[in-house]
Amino acid sequence: MNNVTIALDAMGGDHAPASVMEGAALAIQHSPQLSFLLFGDQEKLAPLLAQFPAVAARSVVTHTEHAVGPHDKPSAVVRTGRNTSMWLAIQAVKEGRAAGVVSAGNTGALMAVSKIILKTIPGIARPAIAGLIPTTQRDCVMLDLGANIDCDAEILSQFAIMGDAFARAVLSIKTPRIGLLNVGSEDMKGHEAVKNASILIRAMGDSINFHGFVEGDDIGKGTVDVVVTDGFTGNIALKTAEGTARMISHYLKRSLCSSLLARIGAAFAWRSLKELKNTLDPRKYNGAMFLGLNGIVVKSHGGTDAFGFSRAILVAAGLAEYNINQRIGDELRVFEMAKKPTLEAAEI
Amino acid sequence: MNNVTIALDAMGGDHAPASVMEGAALAIQHSPQLSFLLFGDQEKLAPLLAQFPAVAARSVVTHTEHAVGPHDKPSAVVRTGRNTSMWLAIQAVKEGRAAGVVSAGNTGALMAVSKIILKTIPGIARPAIAGLIPTTQRDCVMLDLGANIDCDAEILSQFAIMGDAFARAVLSIKTPRIGLLNVGSEDMKGHEAVKNASILIRAMGDSINFHGFVEGDDIGKGTVDVVVTDGFTGNIALKTAEGTARMISHYLKRSLCSSLLARIGAAFAWRSLKELKNTLDPRKYNGAMFLGLNGIVVKSHGGTDAFGFSRAILVAAGLAEYNINQRIGDELRVFEMAKKPTLEAAEI
Repeated sequence: MNNVTIALDAMGGDHAPASVMEGAALAIQHSPQLSFLLFGDQEKLAPLLAQFPAVAARSVVTHTEHAVGPHDKPSAVVRTGRNTSMWLAIQAVKEGRAAGVVSAGNTGALMAVSKIILKTIPGIARPAIAGLIPTTQRDCVMLDLGANIDCDAEILSQFAIMGDAFARAVLSIKTPRIGLLNVGSEDMKGHEAVKNASILIRAMGDSINFHGFVEGDDIGKGTVDVVVTDGFTGNIALKTAEGTARMISHYLKRSLCSSLLARIGAAFAWRSLKELKNTLDPRKYNGAMFLGLNGIVVKSHGGTDAFGFSRAILVAAGLAEYNINQRIGDELRVFEMAKKPTLEAAEI
Repeated sequence: MNNVTIALDAMGGDHAPASVMEGAALAIQHSPQLSFLLFGDQEKLAPLLAQFPAVAARSVVTHTEHAVGPHDKPSAVVRTGRNTSMWLAIQAVKEGRAAGVVSAGNTGALMAVSKIILKTIPGIARPAIAGLIPTTQRDCVMLDLGANIDCDAEILSQFAIMGDAFARAVLSIKTPRIGLLNVGSEDMKGHEAVKNASILIRAMGDSINFHGFVEGDDIGKGTVDVVVTDGFTGNIALKTAEGTARMISHYLKRSLCSSLLARIGAAFAWRSLKELKNTLDPRKYNGAMFLGLNGIVVKSHGGTDAFGFSRAILVAAGLAEYNINQRIGDELRVFEMAKKPTLEAAEI
């Protein structure tokens, strides 16, 4: 990895700033060429910088007196949040001082401020939140995870293009298989937006590897590399999957403690069970990108720990290395989205 | 359980009629007072009736030459399907000869024909598909699982009432906690339909135990007893949960076979792991009800086996015993839905 500078909102997240600083230290261990612009309360950061000298050596700190709270309304932050750690960290990306920004703070505020400061890529109507999720095959990309509650067909078709670029960047897949999340695989299934989005994506031709509709259980199967959906459905699908995983883990633990024999068995299988836990560790999947902006903005889960936060930093650095936004722009041109093909044109 | 007669579409489902007949035999073992009206091809049923004499002894067979195919369009079945096993089985409920009907056939056709024959309960705009799902607490009810792609606030609020009655009937909970599935728990979250549905359900007062909004991960946590959502989101959430469970099971099996120590461990823990598998056996959760019709219609998963089908039969019998539709009608009256309170009225 080349030298990459990432701006960090040191005050965002349930365990900030400690988890942010320790996360930065872990990220440097992984990629020693990383450097940081840290935005936060200097008094709180000072002892942490002393604790993590590797971070201190590769960081420039900007003192900020204000921070965005987890329950602050995005509209209020947009009006009055110019001096917050979040705002100033995003501003550093706009000014080219950082290749990307990572925050574990208030998602709505992060999106609203990012849109105002960075603006969307020409040809993209709305940014989307994209993240990785585990499947029985390789990981897959899902978007939108909650930025846009209502999405029409054109917006969904743009998500397909952005997801395609994201999968190429993050998963190194040459021609990612794109699926549109629906309640059935037949053409007649679903509401107007998904039916029409399917027509629009097909009209993009061979440059996109469109699988067609996929259903909820196709996510875990790994039927496609990119699952495209609106932010309402995507958010609920992602959280339902997380909740199901936690429920099964709960029952598995209970089973393996339920008798002496089970406990002996668990002891024998300990290493394998630990490997399983690692495979599905949600912290490994931390770091969702706001795709479609003129700048890299990665949202870390608010409740994650230092390891989780370090993964979000590495996602941001990887996307910067790949020039993700340049690539999305290129793909948009390939698909002649500049012309904004309408549904009527696609159906001809 | 009292004497209950259930109509069975013997030709619906991937493994019909064998799975239907063996399922009926398993259901009789569990509840010997059950009896059946069987609708299907007599030639195919005859050897199965010989194989399961307990079913033969408690069944009346109606020969049908036609069956609804899994890919038949619901609108076509409505026009031309009057002589199918599915249609005639539903007709038996309408005529009072059966207390309910179970089919593992084409879901869309089953819903369309059921609506035409049985009609909706007065005061209910649209029937919903309701089913049980496992949580870390007791099972919970989720609806709609796919009958209605688009739902406005009034329809969602009716689902809350129907889900309440269903949870009382099937889970024997006196005051089920009702949650509305959304992308966040704050009032401002979500699209207009969920926000307005929340206002309408709150306006029902203390007669309903409304928890408010729940998120996807609340399903597995068991935060509420009834999860209310539109059919698009509900179908995707349910299938995402199923897919996640299968994915974890895949990795768990692989882990427990990955080394000699792991295999020894799995052998010791075998009984506990088997109990875990039983706890989360999807066949136990087979049998989704079409709520809101003047008659009990239970949809079995098309790919289930005899055990799964027997569970769907027992769901239908249980709902018949509880007089579920009578109860929904009563609840509607309690909530004065006859007046059809509008959103404007609720907000005053």
